Amino acid sequence: MNRPDAERDLTLLRRAIALALNSPLPDPNPRVGAVLVSPDGIVVGEGWHHGAGTPHAEIEALRVAGDAARGATAYVSLEPCNHTGRTGPCAVALAEAGVARVVFAQPDPNPTAAGGGDTLREAGIEVAGGLLATEAEAVNRIWTRALRLGRPYVTWKVAATLDGRTSAADGSSQWITSPDARADVHRLRALCDAIVVGTGTALADDPRLTVRDSQGTPAPRQPLRVVLGDRPVPAHAQLRSSEAQTLFLTGHDPAAALAELHRAGIRHVWLEGGATLAAAFLRDGLVDEVVAYLAPALLGAGRPMIGDLGIGTLADALHLDLVDVTRVGPDVRMILAPAGREA
Amino acid sequence: MNRPDAERDLTLLRRAIALALNSPLPDPNPRVGAVLVSPDGIVVGEGWHHGAGTPHAEIEALRVAGDAARGATAYVSLEPCNHTGRTGPCAVALAEAGVARVVFAQPDPNPTAAGGGDTLREAGIEVAGGLLATEAEAVNRIWTRALRLGRPYVTWKVAATLDGRTSAADGSSQWITSPDARADVHRLRALCDAIVVGTGTALADDPRLTVRDSQGTPAPRQPLRVVLGDRPVPAHAQLRSSEAQTLFLTGHDPAAALAELHRAGIRHVWLEGGATLAAAFLRDGLVDEVVAYLAPALLGAGRPMIGDLGIGTLADALHLDLVDVTRVGPDVRMILAPAGREA
Ligand SMILES: NC(=O)c1ccc[n+]([C@@H]2O[C@H](COP(=O)([O-])OP(=O)(O)OC[C@H]3O[C@@H](n4cnc5c(N)ncnc54)[C@H](OP(=O)(O)O)[C@@H]3O)[C@@H](O)[C@H]2O)c1
Ligand SMILES: NC(=O)c1ccc[n+]([C@@H]2O[C@H](COP(=O)([O-])OP(=O)(O)OC[C@H]3O[C@@H](n4cnc5c(N)ncnc54)[C@H](OP(=O)(O)O)[C@@H]3O)[C@@H](O)[C@H]2O)c1
Repeated sequence: MNRPDAERDLTLLRRAIALALNSPLPDPNPRVGAVLVSPDGIVVGEGWHHGAGTPHAEIEALRVAGDAARGATAYVSLEPCNHTGRTGPCAVALAEAGVARVVFAQPDPNPTAAGGGDTLREAGIEVAGGLLATEAEAVNRIWTRALRLGRPYVTWKVAATLDGRTSAADGSSQWITSPDARADVHRLRALCDAIVVGTGTALADDPRLTVRDSQGTPAPRQPLRVVLGDRPVPAHAQLRSSEAQTLFLTGHDPAAALAELHRAGIRHVWLEGGATLAAAFLRDGLVDEVVAYLAPALLGAGRPMIGDLGIGTLADALHLDLVDVTRVGPDVRMILAPAGREA
Repeated sequence: MNRPDAERDLTLLRRAIALALNSPLPDPNPRVGAVLVSPDGIVVGEGWHHGAGTPHAEIEALRVAGDAARGATAYVSLEPCNHTGRTGPCAVALAEAGVARVVFAQPDPNPTAAGGGDTLREAGIEVAGGLLATEAEAVNRIWTRALRLGRPYVTWKVAATLDGRTSAADGSSQWITSPDARADVHRLRALCDAIVVGTGTALADDPRLTVRDSQGTPAPRQPLRVVLGDRPVPAHAQLRSSEAQTLFLTGHDPAAALAELHRAGIRHVWLEGGATLAAAFLRDGLVDEVVAYLAPALLGAGRPMIGDLGIGTLADALHLDLVDVTRVGPDVRMILAPAGREA
């Protein structure tokens, strides 16, 4: 076998990371790519994860390589998994295939899947991990954050006027923002695993909470719809349609709701409000990102965009960092994150 | 005399417009430039307006040209004035100097100064007006708007949190926005003729309302400070300092206040609030521009950025057009104008 060559390792690991970008988004699983290289430097197999329920990237690469995997080096964008889920542990599969060396980028942040590197080492395989970890992590930013937090990553979306109103004095609220902004919401909703609202919004608006294109056609894959609160949602509500699945969670504990969603494999929650529920999540420090659409209009009265946060004085304001600000049609979209928190 | 040459006219008029940019801003007078060209095509005089109380651009150019003005063509960025203010009418001065032809760009929008072109024609001078009018108008955008409106142009400035609060529940409000945003306010304030607040702000904040640099040093030229409302402002108030002049206007009629300021030569008003006074101006359609600084923070309670606008339903929202959005330090600044109104 050739001596490990640091430059070559980086090049092949970059290839694995690039392959990871082929994996679908959103998905409860991370996006992963793998490259198998024979001792004489020939790429004998490549693979990436094709989404929940399909083989992991390493398994796909092993299948392509067949016997050529024996003695090969495996380059993987994420530490090979160690647990038996819908598929067997990749660490074991790599060892059984006779792979001689494994180079991976991001260490697995998932407590129930981590340890793949150790399993490989115990099987006598040479392991190098953590190279290009930042680049690899960027491919699974939200998934990584969710696993580190041990709960879904929460994006709070709000649409309001410049003066922070989400409805006029008489309650009218459709539409505050432009068709462009609403299309942008559908695009971002589509990247999430679940859309969460309170019973207040469910009962007041009878929303569909589906991802639709500009013609109103629902997307093939729909995020899970989740309603939090004790009040019953009527049988004829659009949220009970067959367009998408809906979960009704009683109780008022945002952390408990997120824990339940995490157990169900939800990694990215799109919190659509209303103001009461969003305030509860903010008060409990359970919002990781704010996506605010501001329409260039003033109302001077009406429902405020956020409920009481228990803040009495300016020094206690909930500070955010501005991540991005852009025009969306006639409106402005700001993306913000709690100040000082890892982005 | 050479036959008028359209290309040459444009070139020399552009030169006059470029000279106008040397004039100081802000100033109750427009910024104007003038070029005098002899019949054989030699530039014999140039001038621009140096600010209120100094000779107009044409007079300066005539002074430079002396006898060479006889038979010359005058290129002026604005229609020569027709009225006797602190200086005599320029139209008469040009005629008396023996100028043969006058080419001007922007027609004078000032009803009390207009008619200079006619006066020149009656004096037997060949006159061409309105060429490059748009370019010339851009040099005096706000002055032009003010004279067309017959009142000062009003910029409403507001600084609030993302959720539209200008103070927390306990009234604390210093500082909502960053030092960068406050420096930006001083820079923009310096371009205005008057800073207007209501007695509510004057009494609550005891503000100085002066233009200061980052070291706190007041600028040599200070806009007029104006307080609207009936309640008396105490003798020890900072607004009564000698740093700048202050006008106290009683009554509650925004239009009457603006009329008084217009008579005093104020063309650009910087309306600093508070929410009550700004709402009165907005309700009466007397805001021409909104400069909103939004801090990336949430309060969930506190004083709203704008008072009651008498708007009951979303269809009656006060729509604005977004002119500009930019980051100012950690904050966002939006510039907006009433929808569909001339910018
Ligand atoms: N512009 C926007 O972006 C936007 C987005 C969404 C909604 N909205 C508007 O917001 C309005 C509804 O607002 P809302 O504030 O009444 O509704 P909400 O926040 O959707 O629902 C509030 C309800 O959620 C339940 N809940 C669950 N967990 C809770 C907790 N930890 N704390 C408090 N409540 C909890 C409670 O219901 P139970 O009593 O049933 O337990 C509570 O009454 C609608 O008019 C809608 O149009 C606007
Ligand atoms: N964040 C910001 O950008 C900003 C800017 C300015 C102020 N503020 C805050 O706003 C607070 C003061 O707000 P405010 O709304 O009470 O003060 P305000 O709008 O400055 O003053 C209101 C007063 O103006 C007088 N007034 C004159 N013309 C009026 C009209 N057409 N309609 C109604 N009132 C008229 C009335 O006083 P009389 O009864 O005396 O006649 C009225 O009570 C302060 O706490 C200040 O810190 C914030």
